[in-house]
Amino acid sequence: MNAPTHIPPPIPGEPERASMRTAIPGPASEALRARHHRYQDARPIHFYQDARKSLGNYMVDVDGNVLLDVYGHIAAVPIGYNHPALLAAWRDGRFDWCAGYRSALGVAPAPEWVDLVEKTLMRVAPKGHTRVFTFTTGAEAVENALKAAFIRLARRRRGGAQPSDGDLAATMLNRQPGVNAFKVLSFDGGFHGRSMGALSATRSKPIHKLDIPAFDWPVAPFPASHFPLAAHAEQNRAAETRSLEAVEAALDAHPDEVAAVIVEPIQGEGGDRHASPAFFQALRRLTAERGVALIIDEVQTCGGGTGALWAHEAWDLPEPPDMVTFSKKMQLGGFYCREELAPIEPLRVFNTWLGDPLRGAQLEVILEVIERDRLLENTRSTGERLVAGLEDLCRRYPAVLSGARGSGTFAAVDFPHAARRDAALTALRNRGLEVGGSGERTLRFRPALIFAPRHVGEALDHLESVCK
Amino acid sequence: MNAPTHIPPPIPGEPERASMRTAIPGPASEALRARHHRYQDARPIHFYQDARKSLGNYMVDVDGNVLLDVYGHIAAVPIGYNHPALLAAWRDGRFDWCAGYRSALGVAPAPEWVDLVEKTLMRVAPKGHTRVFTFTTGAEAVENALKAAFIRLARRRRGGAQPSDGDLAATMLNRQPGVNAFKVLSFDGGFHGRSMGALSATRSKPIHKLDIPAFDWPVAPFPASHFPLAAHAEQNRAAETRSLEAVEAALDAHPDEVAAVIVEPIQGEGGDRHASPAFFQALRRLTAERGVALIIDEVQTCGGGTGALWAHEAWDLPEPPDMVTFSKKMQLGGFYCREELAPIEPLRVFNTWLGDPLRGAQLEVILEVIERDRLLENTRSTGERLVAGLEDLCRRYPAVLSGARGSGTFAAVDFPHAARRDAALTALRNRGLEVGGSGERTLRFRPALIFAPRHVGEALDHLESVCK
Repeated sequence: MNAPTHIPPPIPGEPERASMRTAIPGPASEALRARHHRYQDARPIHFYQDARKSLGNYMVDVDGNVLLDVYGHIAAVPIGYNHPALLAAWRDGRFDWCAGYRSALGVAPAPEWVDLVEKTLMRVAPKGHTRVFTFTTGAEAVENALKAAFIRLARRRRGGAQPSDGDLAATMLNRQPGVNAFKVLSFDGGFHGRSMGALSATRSKPIHKLDIPAFDWPVAPFPASHFPLAAHAEQNRAAETRSLEAVEAALDAHPDEVAAVIVEPIQGEGGDRHASPAFFQALRRLTAERGVALIIDEVQTCGGGTGALWAHEAWDLPEPPDMVTFSKKMQLGGFYCREELAPIEPLRVFNTWLGDPLRGAQLEVILEVIERDRLLENTRSTGERLVAGLEDLCRRYPAVLSGARGSGTFAAVDFPHAARRDAALTALRNRGLEVGGSGERTLRFRPALIFAPRHVGEALDHLESVCK
Repeated sequence: MNAPTHIPPPIPGEPERASMRTAIPGPASEALRARHHRYQDARPIHFYQDARKSLGNYMVDVDGNVLLDVYGHIAAVPIGYNHPALLAAWRDGRFDWCAGYRSALGVAPAPEWVDLVEKTLMRVAPKGHTRVFTFTTGAEAVENALKAAFIRLARRRRGGAQPSDGDLAATMLNRQPGVNAFKVLSFDGGFHGRSMGALSATRSKPIHKLDIPAFDWPVAPFPASHFPLAAHAEQNRAAETRSLEAVEAALDAHPDEVAAVIVEPIQGEGGDRHASPAFFQALRRLTAERGVALIIDEVQTCGGGTGALWAHEAWDLPEPPDMVTFSKKMQLGGFYCREELAPIEPLRVFNTWLGDPLRGAQLEVILEVIERDRLLENTRSTGERLVAGLEDLCRRYPAVLSGARGSGTFAAVDFPHAARRDAALTALRNRGLEVGGSGERTLRFRPALIFAPRHVGEALDHLESVCK
């Protein structure tokens, strides 16, 4: 059952361990925050980071504190800080074709972009996916995946006919009667971004949605496995059945109006909620039968954190999802899709930049490092240690910790309630562990793929100190 | 009346003139397109650009053609290709703090980001604006500006009270009765982006909106000046009065529901439609009286193309706009706002990346070049030559060209109908002028700020050849 241990080569010069000089945030961070807050909302900032001194798994802040990072700028740091391969590529001119202007990739891209698409983005495409649409962020990825799903549904409903003049006139007035009934089904606790289309599918917390108009779209309960799985098998199965029944009921209630079902492999903002492969297999069968696009939103899970580049690969689906979104660890946003989801007419899913060539070029280097250093293997074996260690802490501190769970190093553990979790976040940061919260009372781990057994040991030490 | 002539220093090695080896697209571009189109929609691509050989105002394509560029990757190239100052900054390490990872700017930014915000972004802030929110694209800028306007309206309607538990529960189900009635008023022909919130305000063309659900928001006619202004003064004034009456009627029809009016200084996608300073002054007065946020969408006009960093500076408004959006020539997206538009609670207008530090660092260099080389002065004087030259062509080829207009080098001229315009675009590209279309039958000029009198002469030569 255990993944073979593979330890990645160390990053030369990486600190041995966190070391703290001040409380977090320290005085230099607070001085910067005071300046910064005059112009931007600086309240959410944990601390200010010394970009050049940070290395590998360790962040250095402007007060000289060295923190072990298992949060990764909200799961967006794939191979740690200042990886030698990334810096060498920058220095050696591999990105020079991106240095002299920012291009509109749908108007006049450089030939290097075609190479990137073919040799990098398509090389790692999810199985069964033939096309990739690139954007800049996860929210843009989701917005555009939803648009492609709407366009497909409208095409089917028109039966290949052109839109009428009346359709076009109504469109310009935002009064497309059938189209405005189109819906996307999402799950409670789901997070899909914060622009208004994506936000209508987001069901994470009121603060994300409050006061922003939303489309009248249906929501189903996410099954949310209880851990350890063996002890809750029946309860988990029943929750998954109820969730699938709710999905089916929502599709029945809106025949031919639900263009897509969107779901995260593991709910990232919603509290690291997991479901079983059987659940996703059933969801794939159900959506395929109804002709509803299944969008797996891998914005937070993509890029290797679960031990695979795509978390959904672990499910053995009866057929591929229709679309898979990405961003964060991939450095630019986008979605992959099956051929039939690509709009037939040009320019319907389009914008000025369509991503960022430099972030694509860096992704190429990142994927080379992941392969060369076998970082997915590392993430699987290191992740098993991490989750085993969290389970051990749950056994030893049952009044504080419960529900250890994870896939690769995409791991989490629960506190009894929000106040305890928030206090732990602060205490951990002050001991030198940069870690994030998710959901109401969960601690989430989103380290880079170079997170190795020795870092697991250190992270668990910090957590145990705080439990005591 | 004439702006003083200021010619920017030449870019060393910039081509003397366009020179063509093949038709556009040439065989090397077509071979790349065939490869590219297997994975992405490559139909809209004009040609593939040699990123390293392009210089100054001239694009070099993969077939060795050299084209004078007055389109600028959809108005997004501020100081031309491979400007020596940008390349030197890259080479000399000014961007090295961005090289080793991509940061989440709301979690742990580097201190360099605070400097960028204070010394660069706020230095060029529109008058009266105290805060800047950064994002990655124009659509994200608009989405988030609209969200800030909704949050402000909701705060006012609650009179400072906290949302009730019922409000929060309804929010999670997308059923906020009052909030879902919130509206944004935009103008026909307006373009504000293609994500679903921004797209609901976009009224450019059916193809941008077809089949995508939209919010039930009102639209008013954009007045659309006719040129030359002196010959159409009365007609233009009447159109502006009708437009303002329609805005007022829409606000009356939805009391306390319209959170924002959004308008471009010059409609960029909608066909380079202009309105007078008096129109915008009246719109500012009207929105201020009603407590409706006025958002000036400067995504396409920002960064100097009109001869000022912000087009709305030309209007002498009775008070500043509430928000100003930007992207394109600024290289990253965002909005500036007056203090009262910033949400009171943290994390309400937020996402993972909040922009891109590298694109911000490049903007700093770009703004230095604009100041050092007095590129706004250049753009004003060169723009006068360009518009005068277009007017001259309109007089000499009245069967082909009409409606010459512009502000700085943000200029346009009309063809009799779409087919003639589209044929001209192709013919111009084949002669060596990369130019764009807008609206139904308009040719738009969006050159870089280093576009100088000699380039005007060449562009007009190409256009005259095509008129003949």
